[in-house]
Amino acid sequence: MQSQDFFLPIKKELHKTEKELFKAIDTQQPMLKNASEHLIHAGGKRLRPAFVLLTGCCFTSQIDHLIPMAVAMELVHMATLVHDDVIDNSLSRRGRDTVKACFGNRMSIYSGDYMLAKALQKVGEYNRADLVTIVSEASVKVCQGEIVQLQSSFDVGQGFIEYLRRIERKTALLISVACQMGALLVEASPLMTNAMRRYGYYLGMSFQITDDILDFTADESILGKPTGSDIRQGIITLPALYALRKSPDALRLRSILSSADNVARDADEALSIVIRSGGIEYSQQVAGKYITKAHKMLDMIPESQGRKALSQIADFICVREY
Amino acid sequence: MQSQDFFLPIKKELHKTEKELFKAIDTQQPMLKNASEHLIHAGGKRLRPAFVLLTGCCFTSQIDHLIPMAVAMELVHMATLVHDDVIDNSLSRRGRDTVKACFGNRMSIYSGDYMLAKALQKVGEYNRADLVTIVSEASVKVCQGEIVQLQSSFDVGQGFIEYLRRIERKTALLISVACQMGALLVEASPLMTNAMRRYGYYLGMSFQITDDILDFTADESILGKPTGSDIRQGIITLPALYALRKSPDALRLRSILSSADNVARDADEALSIVIRSGGIEYSQQVAGKYITKAHKMLDMIPESQGRKALSQIADFICVREY
Repeated sequence: MQSQDFFLPIKKELHKTEKELFKAIDTQQPMLKNASEHLIHAGGKRLRPAFVLLTGCCFTSQIDHLIPMAVAMELVHMATLVHDDVIDNSLSRRGRDTVKACFGNRMSIYSGDYMLAKALQKVGEYNRADLVTIVSEASVKVCQGEIVQLQSSFDVGQGFIEYLRRIERKTALLISVACQMGALLVEASPLMTNAMRRYGYYLGMSFQITDDILDFTADESILGKPTGSDIRQGIITLPALYALRKSPDALRLRSILSSADNVARDADEALSIVIRSGGIEYSQQVAGKYITKAHKMLDMIPESQGRKALSQIADFICVREY
Repeated sequence: MQSQDFFLPIKKELHKTEKELFKAIDTQQPMLKNASEHLIHAGGKRLRPAFVLLTGCCFTSQIDHLIPMAVAMELVHMATLVHDDVIDNSLSRRGRDTVKACFGNRMSIYSGDYMLAKALQKVGEYNRADLVTIVSEASVKVCQGEIVQLQSSFDVGQGFIEYLRRIERKTALLISVACQMGALLVEASPLMTNAMRRYGYYLGMSFQITDDILDFTADESILGKPTGSDIRQGIITLPALYALRKSPDALRLRSILSSADNVARDADEALSIVIRSGGIEYSQQVAGKYITKAHKMLDMIPESQGRKALSQIADFICVREY
C-alpha cells in the first residue's frame, strides 16, 4: 500500500494545501522565494497537513477552512528542517540537495525564520488566540527538544525516559498539535479533541521510533541519507540505548559512542553491535505499543472515512521502509 | 544627557520588564538558558521595550499590563540579533563575545528560534488575534529585510529607495510596531495609534541612518565593532550611496565596493573616499528630516511625561555617539 492511498479522502484539500503552501512563500525577494520553493519541492509526504485534514474529516465533510492551518503546520515543520540542515551541516536531505548546499548558511537561517513567522501569521488569520498559543508553545518546545538532542550527543549515560522526552518534543508534539487543530477547527467536543490530540502524540512517538530504527536498517538509496547517520553524529536512539544495557558488547559500544573521535573511527562496529543486540526488535515492540494506544484513541471517536484512514496510517507507520 | 534619563517615567516598569525577560527564557535546559541569558546580559538599551512603555505612558499611568508586550518586543529583537551573529560570523557584538563564539552555531540558531517562538507566545497571552497578526507580519518582513540586505551586498547599482526600504524592514518596522502596540494596549484612538506607529517608523529610520553613519565615524572602543565593518562586509549604506553618486572618486569607489576581494584589500581607501565626499553630512540631514517628521507625529497627541520623553529621544538619536 502506498502512503498516498491513505490520503484519498482528503485528496482535493491536500492539492489545495500544496497550492497554498507555494502562495504562502510567494515573496518579491527572488532568492528567498527560490530557497523556500526548493525546500517545498524537496517535499516529503505532507504528513502534518494530512493529519490536520484527516482529523477534520472524522467529524465533518466541510474541511476547506482547515487548509490555512494545514499550510501553517507544514511551514513550522519545514522551518525546523531547514535549521537542522544548517546545524547538522547536512548537504543532502531526502536525496536532494539541501537549501544550505544550494544557497548557503545565511539563506537557510533566514528562510527558516521566514517560514516560522509566516506559519504563525497563518494561524493568526483564524482570529483565535487559543490556536496561536498552542502553536507557539509547540514551537518553543520543539526548539527545546532540538537543544536537548544537542546536549545529549555522545551521552552514553542517558536513560530511556530521556530518549522518549526528546522524541516527544522533536516529532510527536507537532503531529499531536496537527490533530488537535483539525479537531478544534471543526468544533469537535473537548473529549473528541483530546482523543485526537493523544492519537497524534502516540502516532508521532511511534513514527520517530520507526525513523530511528530505519536509520540502522534502511540503506541510503531509500533513506536519502547514509545508514547509521544518527550514530555517526553522536545521536543515541532507542536501539543503541537497548544495546548499551543488554548487549554482551555493551562496554565496547559505550566506549565507541562516548566520543566523536571513536565514533568516526568505529561507527560500523557500533552499528553491528546494536543490530546483534536485539535493539531493533525491542524498538519495534515499543513502537508497536504506541500504535496500539493510538488505535485506542481512534476507538473513542465515531466511524468515518477519516478515522479509517488514520487507522490505516497507524498500521502502516511501523512496517514502512522509508 | 544619558539615554537612561529618557526612561525615568517608566523606570519601575523597565525594571520589571528586565525581570520578566529573564523569566521568559527560564528553561530547564541549562545550555539554552545559559545561551539566552548571555544574550540578554550583553544587553543593549532595551529600546524596543522602552517604546512600548513610553507610548503607553502618553495615554495612561496604568501601564503594568504592557510589560509582557515589552518583553515580547525585546525577544523578537534578540532573536534577529542572534541569527545575524551566526550569519555574519561575528565573534563580538557590543564588545562582548557573541552567543555563537561561546556556544557554537547550533546553539545560536536554536536560541534564536526559541526566542522568536517565545515572543509570539507572550503576545498570544493577550488573547488578541490582531496583536499576534501585527507581530508575526512584522517578523516576516524583518526576515525579508535581512535577505534583501544579503542580496544587495556589493551591489553598487542600488538606489536610495532600495536602501530606505531595506532599513525600514531591518529596524524601523519593529520600533514602529513597539509604539503601535503601546498605543493599542492602552486603547488609544485609531488616530492616536496611527500617530504613534508613524512616530516609531520615522524614529526607527533616523536611528538606523545614524547607526550607519556611526559605522564610518565612531571607533571600535565606542561601537564594540571595528569602524567600517559594514563596508568590509559589502553592506552599502547611505553615506556610501551618496559618495557613489557625488564623489569625484566615485568610479574608484565603485570599483572597490563591487567585489569582496577589492574591499578586503582597499576598505580603508573606500572609507576615506566616503568621508571626503560629504556623504556623512548628507546622511545626517536625511536623519534630521525623519526626526522632524517624528516630532510632527508627537504634536498630534496630548502633552504628557511620556510624550516629553519620546520627544527627547528623537532629539538625541541624531547626535548620539554610540
